[in-house]
Amino acid sequence: MNTFGQKFRFTTFGESHGVALGCIVDGVPAGVKIDLDFIQSEMDRRKPGQNKLQTARKEDDKIEILSGTFEGLSTGTPIAMVLYNGNQKSRDYDNVKDLFRPGHADFTYFHKYGIRDYRGGGRSSARETSARVAAGAIAQLILKDLNINVYSGICNIEGIKSEEFDWEYAKTSEMYALDKNKEHEQKEAILNAKNSHNSVGGVVALKATNVPAGLGEPIYYKLDSVLADAMMSINAVKAIDIGDGIESVLIKGSENNDQIRSNGFKTNHSGGILGGISNGDDIELKVYFKPTPSIFIEQETVNTSNENVNYNLKGRHDPCVATRGSIVAQSMMACVLVDMLLLNMGAKMDHLKKIYN
Amino acid sequence: MNTFGQKFRFTTFGESHGVALGCIVDGVPAGVKIDLDFIQSEMDRRKPGQNKLQTARKEDDKIEILSGTFEGLSTGTPIAMVLYNGNQKSRDYDNVKDLFRPGHADFTYFHKYGIRDYRGGGRSSARETSARVAAGAIAQLILKDLNINVYSGICNIEGIKSEEFDWEYAKTSEMYALDKNKEHEQKEAILNAKNSHNSVGGVVALKATNVPAGLGEPIYYKLDSVLADAMMSINAVKAIDIGDGIESVLIKGSENNDQIRSNGFKTNHSGGILGGISNGDDIELKVYFKPTPSIFIEQETVNTSNENVNYNLKGRHDPCVATRGSIVAQSMMACVLVDMLLLNMGAKMDHLKKIYN
Amino acid sequence: MNTFGQKFRFTTFGESHGVALGCIVDGVPAGVKIDLDFIQSEMDRRKPGQNKLQTARKEDDKIEILSGTFEGLSTGTPIAMVLYNGNQKSRDYDNVKDLFRPGHADFTYFHKYGIRDYRGGGRSSARETSARVAAGAIAQLILKDLNINVYSGICNIEGIKSEEFDWEYAKTSEMYALDKNKEHEQKEAILNAKNSHNSVGGVVALKATNVPAGLGEPIYYKLDSVLADAMMSINAVKAIDIGDGIESVLIKGSENNDQIRSNGFKTNHSGGILGGISNGDDIELKVYFKPTPSIFIEQETVNTSNENVNYNLKGRHDPCVATRGSIVAQSMMACVLVDMLLLNMGAKMDHLKKIYN
Amino acid sequence: MNTFGQKFRFTTFGESHGVALGCIVDGVPAGVKIDLDFIQSEMDRRKPGQNKLQTARKEDDKIEILSGTFEGLSTGTPIAMVLYNGNQKSRDYDNVKDLFRPGHADFTYFHKYGIRDYRGGGRSSARETSARVAAGAIAQLILKDLNINVYSGICNIEGIKSEEFDWEYAKTSEMYALDKNKEHEQKEAILNAKNSHNSVGGVVALKATNVPAGLGEPIYYKLDSVLADAMMSINAVKAIDIGDGIESVLIKGSENNDQIRSNGFKTNHSGGILGGISNGDDIELKVYFKPTPSIFIEQETVNTSNENVNYNLKGRHDPCVATRGSIVAQSMMACVLVDMLLLNMGAKMDHLKKIYN
Repeated sequence: MNTFGQKFRFTTFGESHGVALGCIVDGVPAGVKIDLDFIQSEMDRRKPGQNKLQTARKEDDKIEILSGTFEGLSTGTPIAMVLYNGNQKSRDYDNVKDLFRPGHADFTYFHKYGIRDYRGGGRSSARETSARVAAGAIAQLILKDLNINVYSGICNIEGIKSEEFDWEYAKTSEMYALDKNKEHEQKEAILNAKNSHNSVGGVVALKATNVPAGLGEPIYYKLDSVLADAMMSINAVKAIDIGDGIESVLIKGSENNDQIRSNGFKTNHSGGILGGISNGDDIELKVYFKPTPSIFIEQETVNTSNENVNYNLKGRHDPCVATRGSIVAQSMMACVLVDMLLLNMGAKMDHLKKIYN
Repeated sequence: MNTFGQKFRFTTFGESHGVALGCIVDGVPAGVKIDLDFIQSEMDRRKPGQNKLQTARKEDDKIEILSGTFEGLSTGTPIAMVLYNGNQKSRDYDNVKDLFRPGHADFTYFHKYGIRDYRGGGRSSARETSARVAAGAIAQLILKDLNINVYSGICNIEGIKSEEFDWEYAKTSEMYALDKNKEHEQKEAILNAKNSHNSVGGVVALKATNVPAGLGEPIYYKLDSVLADAMMSINAVKAIDIGDGIESVLIKGSENNDQIRSNGFKTNHSGGILGGISNGDDIELKVYFKPTPSIFIEQETVNTSNENVNYNLKGRHDPCVATRGSIVAQSMMACVLVDMLLLNMGAKMDHLKKIYN
Repeated sequence: MNTFGQKFRFTTFGESHGVALGCIVDGVPAGVKIDLDFIQSEMDRRKPGQNKLQTARKEDDKIEILSGTFEGLSTGTPIAMVLYNGNQKSRDYDNVKDLFRPGHADFTYFHKYGIRDYRGGGRSSARETSARVAAGAIAQLILKDLNINVYSGICNIEGIKSEEFDWEYAKTSEMYALDKNKEHEQKEAILNAKNSHNSVGGVVALKATNVPAGLGEPIYYKLDSVLADAMMSINAVKAIDIGDGIESVLIKGSENNDQIRSNGFKTNHSGGILGGISNGDDIELKVYFKPTPSIFIEQETVNTSNENVNYNLKGRHDPCVATRGSIVAQSMMACVLVDMLLLNMGAKMDHLKKIYN
Repeated sequence: MNTFGQKFRFTTFGESHGVALGCIVDGVPAGVKIDLDFIQSEMDRRKPGQNKLQTARKEDDKIEILSGTFEGLSTGTPIAMVLYNGNQKSRDYDNVKDLFRPGHADFTYFHKYGIRDYRGGGRSSARETSARVAAGAIAQLILKDLNINVYSGICNIEGIKSEEFDWEYAKTSEMYALDKNKEHEQKEAILNAKNSHNSVGGVVALKATNVPAGLGEPIYYKLDSVLADAMMSINAVKAIDIGDGIESVLIKGSENNDQIRSNGFKTNHSGGILGGISNGDDIELKVYFKPTPSIFIEQETVNTSNENVNYNLKGRHDPCVATRGSIVAQSMMACVLVDMLLLNMGAKMDHLKKIYN
């Protein structure tokens, strides 16, 4: 159950403080130019320690490709990528060895497996998402070849909402902010949380453009349900909405329906998805991240013998996980779209005739 | 792609105005007492035409079991269930034959498949969810045997929120309202929409109690991500949140973390899920339904030749799909939980020794 | 686990003496002309009671389509098909209620599930294969549209081997014999077994022509491994060989390698598959059926209390299951080939550009 | 499609002359003692260059574990293992760059993907099976914990059959021979082939003991069909038979049925599998390997421009792949059995009650 996707699928491995993390990406069509610089640049966008809004913990996150390419092109065979863990401060975790950090998966992993690698959260660490970014970068290379674009950015920090969604600006913002006029206020919210040893949540917006109509496999692999699945699997995500999502509950059907003209849909309340299938309009969704559970304020918990203890966190942690999380979310969206592009092939007999005749 | 679940899995078939709908439920453990009355009673809770809040369209929804049981018990073999379509007024759909109803899947099915059964939405009709309720009823029988309970109810209609969540009351309410003090106002909102030939959205709350800790398969079949997938696959659903979900964005980590005492978690902001695995507390989530796209107000659209046309709907439709949708959501939650119970078996070597030694 | 295939996949249900059997076929491309007469004719080729070589048990095997077609064409949605069981003589099975028929699955189903529908073997009955023939007929309709042909026939009964493989003749032979010069002798072997209340085994040969090179998904969904899986899943099958298979063990590499010329392979020892992928030559394999376990000679067994008992079979059974089994094997091959055609789409970036640009 | 198994599943990666090969093993129950020495010893049993019956090509095959264990135990998270390729003589393959070696997958990979890593067969090289042996070693550790044993050995080389099956002897034989009285003759056959620049085929026998009754998921994940799938996926395998398999075609039902007494089955013609489910008796099967396609005799083929060419192989190759193949086959059987043990959990309601009550 460490595999995501049906036809374009990746399997990840690795713990926060283990030897290495990585993934095998399967189902990559042959003939894709595998641009290692692009993959590394996506890794770098996710990696910690880039600025003061993030954890001071530095990780090198240098990706290596072990298989699946030949003379710069994908060969159709699985692409394995690995990221060796460098200098990890495992000692920081000695004091959590026998207890469960509130808001973390320590409690549940212990109850499920009866054993856990407590160092840095082990497998439940958000460090696992680095492998998703590597897989997502491969997906993005495929999408680019088809002129499909994916975007992400921060549209809300602790209730401070972006009014403008400037997707290009977000790429260069150190917090991946969509609205430069709100960026300062949003940064302050993050820094205030950090300075008070606390943390805040945030919302990531995602968009994909030039997505062909017809993607999504009804009834149980719909484009929106797989996007929801993909996003909810990211650490700290607690809610997802597609298009107008939550707000569509507040309006009437007459306002919410996207009427259609010969040159396209008049509005895009649906987020580009109807009946679980893309309608050719932009795909739009939002992903809600809870505040980082790692805070530097004393908390109550129990130890593995179920005795009450008080607990003070050590280590270095992001005061807001949504910012770097936006890169992960964009990666997951790219993977979902490639999977759907592949799965849709064969929806009509025409497709088979185009390939086999 | 008409199959949901990994080990407890069901495959549905059928169109709104075809011969029949139904499902095959696979992975049912042998020895479950298959209570047909209970299954039918769940079907009845979802079926249309029960009261004036719903479509006037009546469907009998009588379920028949074709296989998989013997002398009242499940045998471990697939349970097929079928629902024959009775007297459908397909003529109501003659005027949509060549055009795409706004907010519906007509446009996307046509673009994906190049052909569509336009009668009543064909496969994209919410009538497909009747098959899910049948599968969900089997899942509920399994859960009952393990003393796990699932609940659903309406907590919001067009912004009118329930303050109290009375899960028992919801069972008897004709709109499945959770808060009897808000029910009247919520009903009025639905009837007002109906009377103005319009529609409204709503929010369904779900709860499961006595769920053992340890359910959910990280990293890519987490309990919350599969619940999100399951819910988003329901017609008209546009958002999902787990626990405090959306609201957790507004608070600090210190408020959001559920601290732990030897007798359990002090709060349940997480909705009973940490790191994608159940923590033994109640599972809680919310599902957001958009307003019914079927409204009786003239709308703009195009026909299959992409010519602009104006369109007036005929037929009978629910002014709010969230109410009957709550039964579908509860059914899907039950299916997810049973799947997770089965998948979790084997998480520890101990499990194998209990079964095989 | 009652589903076969990845993209073209069918799920079967039903017991020998239950209400009905059938299947849901998922992944059928839209726009296939669904020729019900052809489907029924394939059902008829498999059905029992056609001649004295077979069981005297008559079953009507009339197939009904419940969903997935509109105006004679597939719509891309699941095609459900059902076969109601008519007048079954369940009383014939009263004496096996509490015991395990040697060579049958009674013993293993009971140990696995703790309960079994003993009437006619329940789910383990070869009657389940009728649903595969229905699915296989749909697959054959797709293959025909692409000018791919599948053939089957009997090439060996109790060691009496066919020398000539006349695939057209096999279609009209009442025992589906490939060699009309051996047919009489092979029939005699079957009738002798029948007359002595015993049974014989046989071998089915399969061929597919005009299969494009490139089908098969390495490493773990190879064309040959999936064919082996498909065939071994048929009741009474105990061995499979691809191309020269077993005999290739006896020859040198220099004899076994198929050398290549610009107009094609010089020989076809490989059965048209290299490295798990079709090479464009004919696909050829053989499937070995054990003698029918149902014989009318007293046998030793135990009852469900594990007490020794002697047992005499009642009922009507085929003296050789390979003959009707050939139709099932051909159906399974057709399903595998369609699945592989669909899965192969996307093997190259070129494929995506053909569909999406 | 580089993943094998459902619940215990492994995904392999890597090409013969790439950076590394390896696998991710998912679904390993937590709490298994991961004995690296045992894993390495299995790797060593498969590795080339051990004696003169094998290729002179030496590969170190040193396995490293990257994840999934903590303090010597499995944690329930994916176990990644990697094998770096050392000193590969890729130049040996310069002359095959533009042509297709007869009997190899060169032709089919090229036609499927339009590109191939020609060095040493790339992904289609039998070197991929090293990753399966690593996964299989983990599976064997689980089986040992449950007192289930798996065995393999050579029972036939070029028609020279073993009469005695001494499973313990096979472990120490340098060709893994089951019958020490036939070993010399079998070795001579291999060496004669080698000396004449040719190759021979062989048959591997497999056995598993103490397998509980009830394993195998009907109808489409039967124990025998998955074993057939697993074995056929191994390079050079062309046939599989279960129990008496091929020979059961020659005998009557009365001889082939395994009659049952209160202390067990009287015979084991079925190979321990009835209706696709284990019956508690030994699992027995045979796997047929074709002669190595790599021979040192001039052959006819075409180049990638489809021009006729004559071709002379360079490099170092096994004259018989069945011997080392036996280790791979045993590994695959172990993986199948663990998968089936896990999948069977939940077959009865009783199982759930044992785990959750």
